[in-house]
Amino acid sequence: MKTPVGIVGFRGYSGQELIRILSRHPRVEIVLLDHRSDSEQRPMPKNHEGPRRAAFSAEEVHRSGLAVVFLATPHEVAMEVAPGLLHAGAKVVDLSAAFRLREAPVHERWYKDAHTSVGLLREAAYGLPEFYREKIKPARLVANPGCYPTAANIAIAPLVEAGVVDLGAGIVCDAKSGVSGAGRKPSLKTSYCEANENFSAYSMLMHRHVPEVLQNSGIEESQFSFTAHLLPLNRGILETIYFRAKGVKSAAEIVELYEKRYAGEPFVRVFEAGKAPDLMHVQHTNFCDLGVTLDAATGRAVVVSAIDNLVKGAAGQAVQNMNLILGYPETEALL
Amino acid sequence: MKTPVGIVGFRGYSGQELIRILSRHPRVEIVLLDHRSDSEQRPMPKNHEGPRRAAFSAEEVHRSGLAVVFLATPHEVAMEVAPGLLHAGAKVVDLSAAFRLREAPVHERWYKDAHTSVGLLREAAYGLPEFYREKIKPARLVANPGCYPTAANIAIAPLVEAGVVDLGAGIVCDAKSGVSGAGRKPSLKTSYCEANENFSAYSMLMHRHVPEVLQNSGIEESQFSFTAHLLPLNRGILETIYFRAKGVKSAAEIVELYEKRYAGEPFVRVFEAGKAPDLMHVQHTNFCDLGVTLDAATGRAVVVSAIDNLVKGAAGQAVQNMNLILGYPETEALL
Amino acid sequence: MKTPVGIVGFRGYSGQELIRILSRHPRVEIVLLDHRSDSEQRPMPKNHEGPRRAAFSAEEVHRSGLAVVFLATPHEVAMEVAPGLLHAGAKVVDLSAAFRLREAPVHERWYKDAHTSVGLLREAAYGLPEFYREKIKPARLVANPGCYPTAANIAIAPLVEAGVVDLGAGIVCDAKSGVSGAGRKPSLKTSYCEANENFSAYSMLMHRHVPEVLQNSGIEESQFSFTAHLLPLNRGILETIYFRAKGVKSAAEIVELYEKRYAGEPFVRVFEAGKAPDLMHVQHTNFCDLGVTLDAATGRAVVVSAIDNLVKGAAGQAVQNMNLILGYPETEALL
Amino acid sequence: MKTPVGIVGFRGYSGQELIRILSRHPRVEIVLLDHRSDSEQRPMPKNHEGPRRAAFSAEEVHRSGLAVVFLATPHEVAMEVAPGLLHAGAKVVDLSAAFRLREAPVHERWYKDAHTSVGLLREAAYGLPEFYREKIKPARLVANPGCYPTAANIAIAPLVEAGVVDLGAGIVCDAKSGVSGAGRKPSLKTSYCEANENFSAYSMLMHRHVPEVLQNSGIEESQFSFTAHLLPLNRGILETIYFRAKGVKSAAEIVELYEKRYAGEPFVRVFEAGKAPDLMHVQHTNFCDLGVTLDAATGRAVVVSAIDNLVKGAAGQAVQNMNLILGYPETEALL
Repeated sequence: MKTPVGIVGFRGYSGQELIRILSRHPRVEIVLLDHRSDSEQRPMPKNHEGPRRAAFSAEEVHRSGLAVVFLATPHEVAMEVAPGLLHAGAKVVDLSAAFRLREAPVHERWYKDAHTSVGLLREAAYGLPEFYREKIKPARLVANPGCYPTAANIAIAPLVEAGVVDLGAGIVCDAKSGVSGAGRKPSLKTSYCEANENFSAYSMLMHRHVPEVLQNSGIEESQFSFTAHLLPLNRGILETIYFRAKGVKSAAEIVELYEKRYAGEPFVRVFEAGKAPDLMHVQHTNFCDLGVTLDAATGRAVVVSAIDNLVKGAAGQAVQNMNLILGYPETEALL
Repeated sequence: MKTPVGIVGFRGYSGQELIRILSRHPRVEIVLLDHRSDSEQRPMPKNHEGPRRAAFSAEEVHRSGLAVVFLATPHEVAMEVAPGLLHAGAKVVDLSAAFRLREAPVHERWYKDAHTSVGLLREAAYGLPEFYREKIKPARLVANPGCYPTAANIAIAPLVEAGVVDLGAGIVCDAKSGVSGAGRKPSLKTSYCEANENFSAYSMLMHRHVPEVLQNSGIEESQFSFTAHLLPLNRGILETIYFRAKGVKSAAEIVELYEKRYAGEPFVRVFEAGKAPDLMHVQHTNFCDLGVTLDAATGRAVVVSAIDNLVKGAAGQAVQNMNLILGYPETEALL
Repeated sequence: MKTPVGIVGFRGYSGQELIRILSRHPRVEIVLLDHRSDSEQRPMPKNHEGPRRAAFSAEEVHRSGLAVVFLATPHEVAMEVAPGLLHAGAKVVDLSAAFRLREAPVHERWYKDAHTSVGLLREAAYGLPEFYREKIKPARLVANPGCYPTAANIAIAPLVEAGVVDLGAGIVCDAKSGVSGAGRKPSLKTSYCEANENFSAYSMLMHRHVPEVLQNSGIEESQFSFTAHLLPLNRGILETIYFRAKGVKSAAEIVELYEKRYAGEPFVRVFEAGKAPDLMHVQHTNFCDLGVTLDAATGRAVVVSAIDNLVKGAAGQAVQNMNLILGYPETEALL
Repeated sequence: MKTPVGIVGFRGYSGQELIRILSRHPRVEIVLLDHRSDSEQRPMPKNHEGPRRAAFSAEEVHRSGLAVVFLATPHEVAMEVAPGLLHAGAKVVDLSAAFRLREAPVHERWYKDAHTSVGLLREAAYGLPEFYREKIKPARLVANPGCYPTAANIAIAPLVEAGVVDLGAGIVCDAKSGVSGAGRKPSLKTSYCEANENFSAYSMLMHRHVPEVLQNSGIEESQFSFTAHLLPLNRGILETIYFRAKGVKSAAEIVELYEKRYAGEPFVRVFEAGKAPDLMHVQHTNFCDLGVTLDAATGRAVVVSAIDNLVKGAAGQAVQNMNLILGYPETEALL
């Protein structure tokens, strides 16, 4: 018998991606929990049904015996509904920013709203398995990481940990994301003729994902310059990360460092020195690809980190976390 | 001294294109007439000014001595403001559908609203210079053609006129347009992730531009099957038109027919038999390109017609009409 | 133990798609057969291996015990290597055009080359399971259909069969394909700046896929006008098919006809009357989506048929055929 | 009477853009000089002629009295043909890299070939009018700047000059270009399905345009980390430039610095503090747009610089240089 799992916010891009991935999962059965009552805009085929739908309610969660509920909603909604879901007996994997920052004041500074579930904030496990696997497994509530921080932390944290970054010189992270990262709600900025054949920077030096990188890579805000850009493509994040290396003499040494750190990790791929990953080979996958270049004479170094923002940056990582919580093989439905 | 001309609806794509074209016109000066009071969303450079702006009013039109006012607004707005503009002494080139269909009942059937300026409907010249040049020159009000009908009429009307179409077998016009044809207002259908890497048919057999083709090419609705499609690109319309030819034995004969009909026309280009135009060579130009193929054995024929929907399909043709009205060289600012 | 299957031509887009789909198939193991010796252009991750590679040879096919070999090569190569593979004991699913047309003269007229395996031509099963399932199951050689004909035949054949098409008035099939349909070999026409933001018709009235539609839908060349177009997107085919209906009074009747014909078919989805499918909902799937519109007064009808050219139009259908040949569930790895 | 000017290399993207711009120039007449004899791939309209063509030769240059010849060829060709053109009496605007680097050893290090015209290398004026206007006016040979260096130098040079950059901390320039920057020759990397929906870094820390920035902005290689990326769009370059500011306390101060430096410059636009330019507002224009952000607490600063790589980054700047050489208004044909 399959384990029932729920999705709240199934109309957005992360929600749709959850449906796609979980439809291939041999051990779970999807229940779409209809939090809003709006009508679906897409014409549906008459002769093919999708997953079962139900109204969103604690009773439904209880009656259906949902083992895990995914929240692919705005963070305000997640903050509001998470306590009730936990009370109803489900575990929660929250794809929003509601529970990612450990300290309420930090959350409140960057998200400009008062946190209404400070207790859960402290309890939540940060859902980056490559760093917090053992905390995720027994967690009731997992805060699925932001898309930009996933690519950034996987690239930066091992370097800081190993002491090969000259932090005094600072780290620059120039980040580019496809348009699905902005969500499905129509806006001028993400309308076709404004985003197509266009490219622009936004949230220069003050993107809300910055504190997630600081918190998990162990660096200070003054050491980290982050700017986001909007790429004219549907999905994918590529970050070009610049720093001064210390204590290493070649890109190959950093490649080796990554290979050791990520030995046995199913979703981190490391390229040989001097080669850079691109987006097309991570799209529709749960991989994070890393490539390194270094100028030995001056220590100037570049790491390129690439993921699919809807998979490793959202729904895929959420399913990876669900697999850990439910004791399934971590890669199930993800390779 | 330059002649002042006004633009109402300058924030939409047709309005922006009017600004671009008229900025290069040596004989006119632009006044942007601010019909709505909303704020501009685009960051503006501090050290470069754009065209002069003024509030939209009859007094302003009069005081500025605007010779021509372009309406790049929804047709409901055009219907409402055109009488006052004419009264204030300006000539009007209306890019909307308000005055394109000669008969009010036809307008009302396709646009589902009561026409409030039936007198002007009868007076308006249809602004397709290749067919109505002499009516346009002295007109007070020019109804600038729709984008799809411009490409369709230029291709079809000469063939029907010359009697080389077997009308009993019908004409199929399979039309594809870039997303700017849907306007600048955000919507789910035209948001980036929905339109990009996607392609779809819409208004199958019942697009509102159909009666403009019937009216100007002299065919019956029962003889004309038209379906529109949304192309994942910013600008351009390409129509593939299928019919059974009669009285001609080769594509070259139809090419010759077009060449004669459009001899001296600055904006219609005809390709040699068997060659088809594409969008990239008409984008950002006022050209309409035509290509013909014919299977001699069976009479099956295909004409491909291509324009830039914002230029020959909207702003460029509007400037061509303005040039005719003001007695300027017809190609001024358009080559 | 998994069944070994081979792929020849694994660097092209259909070959890459075969790898993606078969990697998820629980019952098979991929062997890439290196027919050419050129180097791979893509940087590979150091710590993740792909499928096993082997030289292309009869010995290898025999030694590895390959149950099925997929040919994702040019048709000239397929024609050359298929006999040897069959001799070596493998069954062959050929994605090229080598064995699709039953009559050698028809092949030779459209492909301009002499067929070198006429015997196999007569033996091959045409791999459109919705029509030839029982012939495919025991076949040694399956000719996987062309991408355009797959979408066309699924839409047209049931209508002709049911007698609801006025064949005298002819059928128009206006077909549009993403750029991957042109293959991976660099050319000016498919280079980024030429195809992007562009749209063009090609092979007007004389595309090589036409005879595959005639052969399988039972219509005459004189009744069928087909023109192909190049869409600025990676993958997907949408065909807009126009005809005069007879004996039916509404789109709903045709929808019902399709629903009956395709009852139980896992990969054909039918939309309610008046709704049209688009590409984004078939991309990366093996579905063929159908939508119908009809003008009751005149009988003018439109069917829109959409597939992913690399999946139902190539690799997905090839795996569907492999599943039939090997007795696996037909949808394995395809939902 | 119009002044005749020649274009060598008119089939490439820069050459095509030169034709488009010069076609609108009221004082010049284009002669296309056919250096290669290959056939044109584009179908041409029968009834519209393009510019005059002639064989490429010193005699033709002399006979036609070409005042200026544009070289839009590979740099090897430019190096070879420039001396003869000068000898034949034409002035030369070279869009290639042949004469951009003042020192032959620097050229040879980065371009890996021996320079065959070292004398001309020293004579050539670097064609960035905002910095070298008075040297360009009387020059016989103008080295039109590279696309990346144009955007970089306009942003960086005034800051270094004013002493507001902490050079010890280094400058990071993360540069992104549309695909036309890679030229028109087909290749796998620039073929549609490889570049579309994709994004990748290339020439990390070692792009050949680096020395042009060092030479003209007065910085050392060890202080400058530059990485190029390929954007999935046709045209445009956007560079995100990170540095530590010294001696300034706000973005507004840097904005003011730029406004003073570029007062009277027709093609440099400066945005208000905190606002960033995008590509859509510079495409098809000769503008370079600049936007600045600064974190006052730490001095971390970002400048975004945007141009159209085919206009300000190539053909538009070349025409600007021609206007200076021939004594025409500098903005002629460029606004």
